[in-house]
This record gives sequence, C-alpha cells and structure tokens, in this order.
Amino acid sequence: MKVMIIGGVAGGASCAARLRRLDETAEILLVERGPFVSFANCGLPYHTSGIIAREQDLLVANEAYFKANLNIDARTRCEAIAIDRKAKTVDLRHLETGEVTTESYDKLVLSPGAPSVAPPIPGIDLPGIFQMRTVPDARAVREWIEKGSLFLTGMSKYSGFQTARPKTRAVVVGGGFIGLEMAENLVHRGFDVTVIELRDQVLAPMDREMAEIVERHLNHHGVSVVLGDAVTAFTPREDGAIEVATRSGTEFPADIVILALGVRPDTALARSAGLEIGKLGGIRVNDHMQTSDPEIFAVGDAIEVRDTVTGAWSLVALAGPANRQGRIAADVIAGRDSRYRGTQGTSIIGLFDGAAAWTGASEKALQNAGRQDYEKVYLYPNSNAGYYPGAKPIAMKVLFSRTDGRLLGAQAVGMKGVDKRISTLAMAIQMGATVYDLEEAELCYAPQFGSAKDAVNFAGMVAADVLRGDMPISHWGDPSEAILLDVREPAELRVESVAGAVNIPLRQLRERITELPRDRDIHVICRSGQRAYYATRILLQNGYRAHTMSGGMLARYHRGVLDS
Amino acid sequence: MKVMIIGGVAGGASCAARLRRLDETAEILLVERGPFVSFANCGLPYHTSGIIAREQDLLVANEAYFKANLNIDARTRCEAIAIDRKAKTVDLRHLETGEVTTESYDKLVLSPGAPSVAPPIPGIDLPGIFQMRTVPDARAVREWIEKGSLFLTGMSKYSGFQTARPKTRAVVVGGGFIGLEMAENLVHRGFDVTVIELRDQVLAPMDREMAEIVERHLNHHGVSVVLGDAVTAFTPREDGAIEVATRSGTEFPADIVILALGVRPDTALARSAGLEIGKLGGIRVNDHMQTSDPEIFAVGDAIEVRDTVTGAWSLVALAGPANRQGRIAADVIAGRDSRYRGTQGTSIIGLFDGAAAWTGASEKALQNAGRQDYEKVYLYPNSNAGYYPGAKPIAMKVLFSRTDGRLLGAQAVGMKGVDKRISTLAMAIQMGATVYDLEEAELCYAPQFGSAKDAVNFAGMVAADVLRGDMPISHWGDPSEAILLDVREPAELRVESVAGAVNIPLRQLRERITELPRDRDIHVICRSGQRAYYATRILLQNGYRAHTMSGGMLARYHRGVLDS
Ligand SMILES: Cc1cc2nc3c(=O)[nH]c(=O)nc-3n(C[C@H](O)[C@H](O)[C@H](O)COP(=O)(O)OP(=O)(O)OC[C@H]3O[C@@H](n4cnc5c(N)ncnc54)[C@H](O)[C@@H]3O)c2cc1C
Ligand SMILES: Cc1cc2nc3c(=O)[nH]c(=O)nc-3n(C[C@H](O)[C@H](O)[C@H](O)COP(=O)(O)OP(=O)(O)OC[C@H]3O[C@@H](n4cnc5c(N)ncnc54)[C@H](O)[C@@H]3O)c2cc1C
Ligand SMILES: CC(C)(COP(=O)(O)OP(=O)(O)OC[C@H]1O[C@@H](n2cnc3c(N)ncnc32)[C@H](O)[C@@H]1OP(=O)(O)O)[C@@H](O)C(=O)NCCC(=O)NCCS
Ligand SMILES: CC(C)(COP(=O)(O)OP(=O)(O)OC[C@H]1O[C@@H](n2cnc3c(N)ncnc32)[C@H](O)[C@@H]1OP(=O)(O)O)[C@@H](O)C(=O)NCCC(=O)NCCS
Repeated sequence: MKVMIIGGVAGGASCAARLRRLDETAEILLVERGPFVSFANCGLPYHTSGIIAREQDLLVANEAYFKANLNIDARTRCEAIAIDRKAKTVDLRHLETGEVTTESYDKLVLSPGAPSVAPPIPGIDLPGIFQMRTVPDARAVREWIEKGSLFLTGMSKYSGFQTARPKTRAVVVGGGFIGLEMAENLVHRGFDVTVIELRDQVLAPMDREMAEIVERHLNHHGVSVVLGDAVTAFTPREDGAIEVATRSGTEFPADIVILALGVRPDTALARSAGLEIGKLGGIRVNDHMQTSDPEIFAVGDAIEVRDTVTGAWSLVALAGPANRQGRIAADVIAGRDSRYRGTQGTSIIGLFDGAAAWTGASEKALQNAGRQDYEKVYLYPNSNAGYYPGAKPIAMKVLFSRTDGRLLGAQAVGMKGVDKRISTLAMAIQMGATVYDLEEAELCYAPQFGSAKDAVNFAGMVAADVLRGDMPISHWGDPSEAILLDVREPAELRVESVAGAVNIPLRQLRERITELPRDRDIHVICRSGQRAYYATRILLQNGYRAHTMSGGMLARYHRGVLDS
Repeated sequence: MKVMIIGGVAGGASCAARLRRLDETAEILLVERGPFVSFANCGLPYHTSGIIAREQDLLVANEAYFKANLNIDARTRCEAIAIDRKAKTVDLRHLETGEVTTESYDKLVLSPGAPSVAPPIPGIDLPGIFQMRTVPDARAVREWIEKGSLFLTGMSKYSGFQTARPKTRAVVVGGGFIGLEMAENLVHRGFDVTVIELRDQVLAPMDREMAEIVERHLNHHGVSVVLGDAVTAFTPREDGAIEVATRSGTEFPADIVILALGVRPDTALARSAGLEIGKLGGIRVNDHMQTSDPEIFAVGDAIEVRDTVTGAWSLVALAGPANRQGRIAADVIAGRDSRYRGTQGTSIIGLFDGAAAWTGASEKALQNAGRQDYEKVYLYPNSNAGYYPGAKPIAMKVLFSRTDGRLLGAQAVGMKGVDKRISTLAMAIQMGATVYDLEEAELCYAPQFGSAKDAVNFAGMVAADVLRGDMPISHWGDPSEAILLDVREPAELRVESVAGAVNIPLRQLRERITELPRDRDIHVICRSGQRAYYATRILLQNGYRAHTMSGGMLARYHRGVLDS
C-alpha cells in the first residue's frame, strides 16, 4: 500500500507517524511545501520575542528523523500541485529545482492547513508587514526587530536607557489568538502595541462580555485595543515607518505590522480535484476522516468538523484536533474502525501571566444554533484557598441546558488556575456531565491548588441552585421592571453603586425585610452574586419575588477581576 | 424544626450554612468544643512556617458571622457529651464554666471529625511534642519555634549567620500528608527534618513505587525519610532537646517533634448512643448521610464512605467530601432527596514547589478488593510543550480495567501541572470514562499550558494501545525469561544500562532485526517507554514476540523524574 500525505506538520506528520506504527509495510510519502516538517506552529509567536530562544527548538522532527526512526520518506520544499483521482496520482513540484514529478497513491491524506487571510489592502506587501504561520515568518520578524534596534546595542548598559530609547510602535491587525499572542510578545520586545480588530471584541469564540475582561487586561499591560475598525491602507512614511490607515479615519504609525486576520482552509487542491467542500469553506469529511472520495482523507485546519455540543459544522484551527484527526485517518487507512467524535473547541491563550480559555459552546454559538433552552451563570471563585497567599479570582461563565442540566460550555479568564478548570470542564462536557455532576466533582484540594469547594464545584452548585428553583436569576441588561436591592455593606457602595438601588446589607435583611414590597420583582445585587443568593433565599421563603443578579457587580462591567 | 449540629468546622459548618439557605425557619444550633468554628484546618501547617502569616487568616467565619448572616446559634468551647436518642436531647458542657445543659433536637448532625492518633509511647507528653489539628496546635508550634530561636534575634544581620546558627532538628513521626506538609514547613523554618514512618513508604494511599519519587524529592530538599521504623520512646535530653528512640535502635535528637500518625474517626458520642459503627471504625451512614438512627446524621472524617471505584467501605479524611456530605445532610433534613455518590479519594499534596496527587483506586486498593482484571501503565509526559521553556515531566501511573477500558485510578508526581491532570482524570473517573475517552479528550493547549497531545491524552493512548493489543507490556520485577532489548542510543547506556540487555538503537532496528530470536519473548526498554513501543511495533509486525517495558528506565527505580 502506498500512502501519500500532503502537508507535513500537525495533522500530516501525526498521521504519517501513526500509520508507520500500525503498518510496517506501507510505503509512506510525506510532502511539505515549506522548508520544515513537524515544526511547532504554536511556538512561533514566542520565538519572535526570544522566550523560545532558538529556532532549532521549534523543530520537533526533521526528514532524517522520519527516515531513520519511521522509515518515512519526508520531502520538504515539495508542493503537491494537482491530484488525478482517476489515475490516483499527484503531481509534485520540487521547489528547489522547479522539477515536477508524478507519484501514485493508494490512499491520499490532505493536511494542508489554513493559511492566514490576507485581503487586498493597498500596501499589504510593504516591508515590515508580516504574518505568522511558518518558521521563516518568525525568523523574518525577529530579523526585522533586531535590525530595527541595532542602534540600541549597548544602550541598555546606561541608566538613561528608558528615556533615551526611541519609541517603537507595532500594529497587530486582528484580535484572534495569534494576534494577541503577537501583541504580548511585541510588548516583551519593547513595542507600543495597538491591536486593530474589526469585530466588537477580541477572541471571537468567547462571548463579548468575557472578551472584555481580556481587553482590559491587555490595556493594563499597555496594549491599545481598537475595536470595530478595519485597516484600509498601509503607506510608507518618510521616517521609514508604515502608516496604518483605518476605516474610521484614524492613522497609526508602525515600525512593524503583524497581520493576524484569521485563517481560511486551504482547499485549492481539494477543490480542483472535485472533492466536496462544506458551506463554511472547509473540506467535507465523514467521521472516518474520508472526503467525498473514500480513498482521499483530509484532516486538520482544512476541514469542517462537527461541533460536539451544537452539532453544527464548524471551522476550528487547533493543534490537538489536527493531531487526533491525523491519528484517526491513519487508523482507518490501516483498516481500523476509529471515528472522530467531533470538536469541542477547547482553547486557551496565555496573556501576560494570565489566561483566557473556553470549551464547548459560547452563548452566541447556542443562539446561532437556535437553542433557547440554555441558561448561564457568572461566578468569580478563587483559584485556590483564599486564606493561602496568592489566590486569584477566576471569572467564569458557564452555560448549561435548562431542560436536563447538561453542561454546554464554559469560559474563564484569570491569572491562575484557568487551564485546570477549563480542562476539567472540557472532560465533563465530553462525558455528557450535568451541572449536578459538577456539584459532586471531587477535585484536587490542598490550599495551594484549590478549595474544599473547587471553582468547578461552585459552577455546578450555582447552576444547580438555578435549575432547582432555589436561585431564580436575572442578568444585567435584561429588560425588567424590577426593584434593585443591593445587599452589600455601605462601605462597598461608596466605591461603586447602582443608581436607584435600595441598600439593605445582608446581615440586616431579616429585620428590615418589611421595607420591601411583596408584589414586585426584586433583583438582588452584591459583589459576586453570593450574598445576593443568600438574600434571595431569605426573600423567597418570606414570600417575596426575588432574583439573584448573576455575577453581581463584577458581572456588570466585567472589570476588576484580573488586574485589581 | 430544631437541628443541632455537633462539630463546627468543615462538615458541620457547611451543613449549618446550607440548611439555613434551604430553611429560614429551622432553629439551628452549632456546637464546637474548640475555640473556633469554621477554621481552615488545611492551612495549619503553612501557618507554622509563616507562609500563611496571620492566625486570623485561618478563621473563615466566626460565631458573629453565623449569627448576623445566617441566623445560626454557633457556640464554641461547648462540648456535646451525651446523646439521649429516646428523649432526643444532647447534654452540652460549656467548657469555660463547666456548666452542663441539655438541648433537644428534632434532627441531629454529627461532624466530630477524626483526631490525630496518639499511641501510648513513653514520653509522648513531653514539651516540644505537638500534633497538628487545631488553631491552638499551630499557635503552640509557632511559639515553640519562636522561643527556641529567640537567641537568633538580629543574627541574620551578620554575614556569619549561616555558620553561626546552631542546628535545629525536627522529627516528624508519620509520613502521611500532614506529616509531610509539616516536614516542608519545618524546613522553611530552618530545621533539619527527619520523617519516621512505620510503613515501607510515605503517603500510604499511593502505590509504593510512586511514593518513592516523593521520598527522593524530600531527600533532595534535605528531609531524611526513615521507613519501616517506629518510635518507641521520647526522652528529655540534658541540652533541652528530646531524644527520639526507635524500634531499630536508632536515636534522633529533636528540638521539636510533630506527631502525625494518622487520624481515627471520633466515634465516642456515636458509640455511646448506640449508633452503628462500621468495621473500619467509622460511623456507618446511608447515602442520605443518615446513621442507623434516621433522625441522626453523620458526615465528614468520622464516617465510613463507599469508595466509588472499588465499592468498598473506606475511611477518607478530606475536606471536599466533608463539605459535600454536610451539604447533602442539610438537603435531606430540608426534605430533599440528595444522595452522596461515594468518595473517589482525590487528593493532592504540595511539596517544595512540586506536587503528588491521586484519584480513584491505587493498585494495592484494587488488589485488596480482589480485582484482577486491571492493567497499569507508567508514563512521563511533559507538563507542557517541550519546546517552551520550563516544561517539566510528570510521572504518571494509570490504572484501568482490562475488560472494558474503564479508568480506575491515577497517580502523578511532578513539579508542574500535576493538579490539573489529576483533577481532569478525577472528572473522567466520576463520569465513568474509559481510556478511549482519554485518547479523545480535548484539553487546553497553548505551549505554556499543555501539549497538542496532553499528558491525559498520552495516558489514554498508551493504555488504549495496550488494550488493543498493539502494545503488549511488561513491568519491571515481573518474573520473566524474556530477552531484554534496549533500543536507546549508546550514549544513553553509558549513563545507566541494564545488565544482560542487548542494545540495538531504534533507528537500526529494522536492519538488524535478524540478530534477535523469533522464538523468545523480548522485553523492550528505552528511557520512558515510547521508543520501546515503536520498537515493539516493528518487532510484532515482523513476527517477533515483543513487549514494551512500561515506563522504561524511568520506571525502573522511579528516580530522575523530579529533581534531574
Ligand atoms: C502562530 C500560531 C500559533 C498557534 N497556536 C496554537 C495554540 O496555542 N494552540 C492550538 O491548539 N493551536 C495553535 N495553532 C494552530 C495549530 O498550529 C494548527 O491548528 C495546526 O497546526 C493545524 O494542523 P494542520 O496539519 O491542519 O496544518 P499545518 O500544521 O498548518 O500544516 C499544513 C502544512 O501543509 C503544507 N501544505 C499546504 N499545502 C500544501 C501542498 N499543496 N503541498 C505540500 N504542502 C502543503 C503547508 O506548508 C503547511 O506546513 C497556532 C497556529 C499558528 C500559526
Ligand atoms: C493539618 C491538617 C491539614 C489538612 N490538609 C488537608 C488538605 O490539604 N486537603 C484536604 O482535603 N483535607 C485536609 N485536611 C483534612 C480536612 O481538614 C478534614 O477532612 C475536614 O476538616 C473534616 O471535616 P469534619 O467536619 O469531619 O471534621 P473537622 O473539620 O475536624 O471538625 C470537627 C470538629 O468537631 C469538634 N468536635 C468533636 N467532637 C465534639 C463534641 N463532642 N462536641 C463539640 N465539638 C466536637 C472538633 O473540635 C472539631 O473542631 C487537613 C487536616 C488537617 C488537620
Ligand atoms: C513529531 C510528530 C511527527 C510526532 O508524531 P507522533 O509520533 O504521532 O506523536 P508523539 O511523538 O507525541 O508520539 C505519540 C506516540 O507515542 C506513544 N507514547 C507516548 N508516550 C509513551 C510511553 N511512555 N510509552 C509508550 N508509548 C508512548 C503514544 O501512544 C503514541 O503512539 P500511538 O499514536 O501509536 O498511540 C508530530 O507530533 C508533529 O509533527 N508535531 C509537530 C507539529 C505540531 O503538532 N504542531 C502543532 C502543535 S505546536
Ligand atoms: C465558612 C463555611 C461555614 C461556609 O459554608 P458555605 O456557606 O456552605 O460555603 P461557601 O461560603 O463556600 O458558600 C457556598 C454557597 O454560596 C453559593 N455561591 C457561591 N458563589 C456564588 C455566586 N457567585 N453566586 C451565587 N451563589 C454563589 C454556593 O452555591 C453555595 O450555596 P449552596 O450550598 O446553597 O448551593 C464553611 O465552608 C466552613 O466552615 N469552612 C471552613 C472549614 C473547612 O471547610 N475546613 C476544611 C478546609 S480548610
């Protein structure tokens, strides 16, 4: 059996390696257009700042490794240019020589990935404008930065460094995770960074109010975030910098520009071979990773996947799924019945020692899927025991089904413990857990690591209280005629209060309860929602129509969580 | 309804608070023998070293809080001394005054905890010998340490500090988690610490070979660990120190001794009231937390719980379960049908910036439960992407059912990411996940936080490979006539090799395969098991009888993982 794999990085290389383990006799040919197979795409941004010091560190495996250990013929600088499905051949162009050869296959695997979107903006090819997808991209950015700061050599030895240093300015176009990672790394290199994003939020897969926490965190670290604006032109300036003009009429001078406008499935080969393409523009595959031609498989960023929560097709460019899909394609080629279960979209981005992460469906994804049976809660539990130094709040939004309590999605932002909670919740979603299961979860607890009631337990408890009717909730911004009752202490209200809200501190509520009307809805506010819930319990049992304002003041403007 | 709760900390206080939320009208009386309700037991060791600076920080809630916010009558220094089940009354001794009063109840909740074991060793009451259960215990240790180092005042100002400082020696009796936490905190206070443990390992719930990694880590940080020895006497020395004599005839001088011999359910009240006690010595309850008297509930360290994996009764002293059980008892008292699902035993201990954690059943627990259908794998995945600076290996042992692949237990030790993996695996066990589910898990990945194939995925992949027959495995120490084949590079063998093993590096295996016999079992070794698996695949497909030595050289002596 001769298997050809097009694309030699996450999906393709994983497929090749797994296939060899399952089948010693298969002839495996791995072709890669770029100069490297098996490189760490996800490390590229960190190499531009030097956090990952050597380019070498990004190269996980090379052609020699594939040959010696896996008996795989891996060829770089080798581009697949056409597929002949009838003849079962692929034309390959050897980029060093320009020579074109034809190779046959019994099974073909496509893992061409998803290149960065580069719209035809005037000036987009100016020197100093980069995208970030390959090792050469990262090298080019490093070299540009180093060239630009050559005159600084030795200056850090003088104490006048800070003031003498000329300002260097970067513009990152696009507020997705690659854009934000680049923004951070450019800050580490001393740039003043502006992120320009067309949408009204960064990190599109998150819900907007959660993304706002990220935006504030970026601001806190000196990154300007411009939302709802689009770049219209790049023009060279006299001083060698680039003028970045936007639709709103603003101009941003930049010594470097990073384009991170998102990625789009590479379907050129698949289309010209007549393979089915999905509505979202990705290659359509079944759960065996087979395209509409069962001898041709496709994996990774180039395909459409089923969202495990909504069931909708979606485009998800993530390394974990790409690796797993590659492994499954290899299984199927080797005659096994492996199936891909779909993608949950679990993601994380580290940002200035904090992190934002999510798994499952966002609220907008549920809305797009037409689901109306969901509910959401906001909470701000500690990363670990509050009495242990260094505990930090985690802002969480948890979505679940009102019908059966099933967990649908979760988003979290915080300085500590975010990855753990979202990974744990990802496992919960995968296994079909309900919020009642989260209540009962038995997670690691010692004071450095968690709490006797972990953040995940709290998520479950709060959601279950809502479903059991113990905590009717309301949300900021929902239309309402309700009275607002603030149960915080007067000292807290002096910092921030809500116009028109009645203040009865929780500890006085039982004695002052008659000050409130029984015939109106009462929305109860505190800082995080916890005391409001306690008050709600008191009110409900006394015949009042109470609702807890989910997430309290912290959920009102989504601030004060990370950087307070 | 009048509800009395005996024991005012984890289980008791949680029960009281929850009950008030569910029932505004219940009369709730919470009695606590000690001077504080609602304190953070788990923080006590960290207060002795000053990591948790103020005693105040350990006090999560007090009587005034219970009154003002929860309308609960919480009484400290108030001991329940007898229960009259017929009359439904409890005699209370007010420890300040000695006065005894009688209070009636409709429902009674016992959460008396589990005091430290203190066997009748001669000299056990000498000054300088402490246990660690209460805030006064922690205070006493702090005061003792501070008194003992008074003469040091100001000395740290001189550069001769290190050599001039007299040696201070601590002996910790017992290598459970409280003992080891105390050992660490005493090291932080400058003590030379010796831990003496009767068993042949520390951290009894772990399997021995995993505990060995912890022991080496302790050694690495200057803690001596003496195993298989028991203290026989404490005697005062002339110089004011204590001589700790052991069964083996060794003597250890100590300026302070911590007794951490484990805990035993406090069943005095329950026994004298004639409530059913289980075989292990804990109060017997049903899944509603009811004792043999349905009007009396018991929760926390004092009860026996069902192990969710083995189904066996067990004693588990952990704060999370105590809190949840208290909450469930409150639910049931308030007329709800909540049930406790049993205890998984998920635990973690932080140790010198590392951690050891486990969830579900250990191998010995499975053996004790008579289960023979389990298999185990060892692996050493990175905490996060190896190409990102600061990645650390995690030593993992994963137990699963050979019959259906169900995950049974997991143990992990490492410097980073241990809590995340065990919490994620705890969720997996709770939900009945198989190792095939772990293969497919979609967890957070960015290079700071994980890998495209997370440690949890690797655990699933390796275990699933075993179950599918792709990776027959063997374990060090299993009786065997097999040939040993080491597929590491010659340079690695120079550091450590296995006597009698044949060496064929993986990359030469295909060409040199005929050097090996087809008619004998071959156990393949490498550093971690991964290359051995690759070699196993090559051998099996060529008709050889190959097995992968699970965990490779790293699993041979369980060293070199944490502190290399
Ligand atoms: C800067 C950056 C940071 C990222 N960070 C993360 C992260 O933190 N977490 C995460 O989960 N994911 C991250 N990703 C996404 C992740 O890298 C991708 O999801 C994953 O690499 C997709 O795998 P793939 O095999 O589909 O495509 P790729 O890994 O992109 O590989 C496709 C390869 O195919 C080659 N190719 C395409 N067409 C042809 C052809 N015709 N002939 C020959 N070769 C061809 C391309 O040159 C390319 O090298 C990041 C990506 C980038 C670019
Ligand atoms: C030093 C230390 C560190 C720990 N670290 C951890 C950790 O990191 N993680 C973890 O999960 N668990 C940890 N634990 C265990 C955890 O604290 C217990 O599992 C939990 O507190 C048990 O709750 P409980 O309500 O059963 O008992 P406790 O919290 O011990 O409360 C019982 C209370 O009942 C009182 N009492 C007993 N009898 C009477 C009576 N007759 N009348 C009145 N009052 C009475 C006692 O004075 C006591 O205060 C630690 C425990 C200790 C001591
Ligand atoms: C380098 C590369 C080719 C390796 O692919 P791979 O061999 O499938 O993956 P790994 O090296 O992680 O090895 C996994 C295999 O080792 C096995 N393994 C891991 N640890 C083991 C252990 N301790 N004992 C036995 N087997 C082990 C796994 O089970 C798996 O084998 P299987 O798939 O047959 O079950 C591929 O991962 C790659 O190209 N990576 C870089 C590109 C990339 O992923 N980019 C995106 C992220 S930055
Ligand atoms: C202090 C103590 C009495 C508090 O008990 P508690 O009120 O049950 O617990 P918490 O303070 O964690 O509050 C939990 C409640 O607030 C709710 N809550 C938490 N965050 C919320 C939010 N953002 N919005 C609404 N409700 C919220 C929870 O759902 C839960 O209510 P429920 O049980 O009715 O569902 C008890 O935890 C205690 O004594 N702790 C110290 C002793 C101890 O545990 N020691 C061992 C560990 S060191």
